[in-house]
Amino acid sequence: VPVGRRVGKPGIGQDAINRWMIEAATSGQRVVRLKGGDPFVFGRGGEEVEALREAGIAYSVVPGITAGLGAAAQFEVPLTFRHEALRITFLTAHKAKDAETVDWSVLTDEKMTVVVYMGMTAAPSVRAGLLAAGRSPQTPVGVFARATRPDAQAVVGTLDELPALIGEIDGGPAILIIGDVVTHSAPWRHSNLNQVMSKLLDAAE
Amino acid sequence: VPVGRRVGKPGIGQDAINRWMIEAATSGQRVVRLKGGDPFVFGRGGEEVEALREAGIAYSVVPGITAGLGAAAQFEVPLTFRHEALRITFLTAHKAKDAETVDWSVLTDEKMTVVVYMGMTAAPSVRAGLLAAGRSPQTPVGVFARATRPDAQAVVGTLDELPALIGEIDGGPAILIIGDVVTHSAPWRHSNLNQVMSKLLDAAE
Repeated sequence: VPVGRRVGKPGIGQDAINRWMIEAATSGQRVVRLKGGDPFVFGRGGEEVEALREAGIAYSVVPGITAGLGAAAQFEVPLTFRHEALRITFLTAHKAKDAETVDWSVLTDEKMTVVVYMGMTAAPSVRAGLLAAGRSPQTPVGVFARATRPDAQAVVGTLDELPALIGEIDGGPAILIIGDVVTHSAPWRHSNLNQVMSKLLDAAE
Repeated sequence: VPVGRRVGKPGIGQDAINRWMIEAATSGQRVVRLKGGDPFVFGRGGEEVEALREAGIAYSVVPGITAGLGAAAQFEVPLTFRHEALRITFLTAHKAKDAETVDWSVLTDEKMTVVVYMGMTAAPSVRAGLLAAGRSPQTPVGVFARATRPDAQAVVGTLDELPALIGEIDGGPAILIIGDVVTHSAPWRHSNLNQVMSKLLDAAE
């Protein structure tokens, strides 16, 4: 009998989750640990697997659409693009403090797309880190909030404007995608179209 | 009427694929462009979307399990792990020449997992590049061939041994996962268990 469970509410903690899974499994139940995204990309699936191994419980791991790929598909941001984006780095920056521990100097490559998970609070530190490391202030940036949900929201602009872009978002969590590929995204195209339209309207007046 | 198509055989070329999709769609058919993996991760989905936009054809993009995540789930390699792996970089190195254009100095971070797509041929160059940049020769490496297929195959070892590991694989394509997280993988655990067993057997003789 499959048992759908909802765990992972804030405050329960990883140890309790592991303990619950093990208790349910050893009592004979079949446990489904359902996660958003992919269990092995900022999902702590590795820790859960280790706990199950230690407890001698059989399991299997099912991959998922991690938020970075979900946001990319929904807003049409090709994370790689021929001759333009050859590498992708995923990192997380939940707090400003996290962003301060990142060595931004390795993320200045123009041909690298940088995907920041949980990047809303730390956005000013992400901006400061990348600019100080030498990434161009004109680097295109997309802020994709509540990606893959029906109420998802996108704001695009430049790295320099990042904190202001965050201000336009109605609430997280948000993925930041930083790199030239953002210019291919649907929101960027719409935003440019609107700018051209408003210039034409101004000229017509 | 959905039309399942199989395109992308070697030699057809991206322009022909785009043309075929557009011709089929403009003739009134509903076209499904089915890909392995995720269209926006080394999948050239960005180019296809641009061709469709220019042709004025409505489309939607469905994300997928990119090979790196598929290999990770199948062989239980947590791409991130608390305190141990905080960042992931995806890159491609189809030919040795590709590997030579990579700036390996930005990939020496011990807390970064490096995932190399199509890395079999270029493996000696990947090894040379990372070692020259200062990554430890003892860095754990997994070679995951034909990942997610029933005949998938895994070989694990160290960065220093990478070309020899490739020699143990029966054919590609292969994903390389480089970083400490490989020690958590199922093949690494089995391999260590075998080593312990053979030492015990040696001691017993």
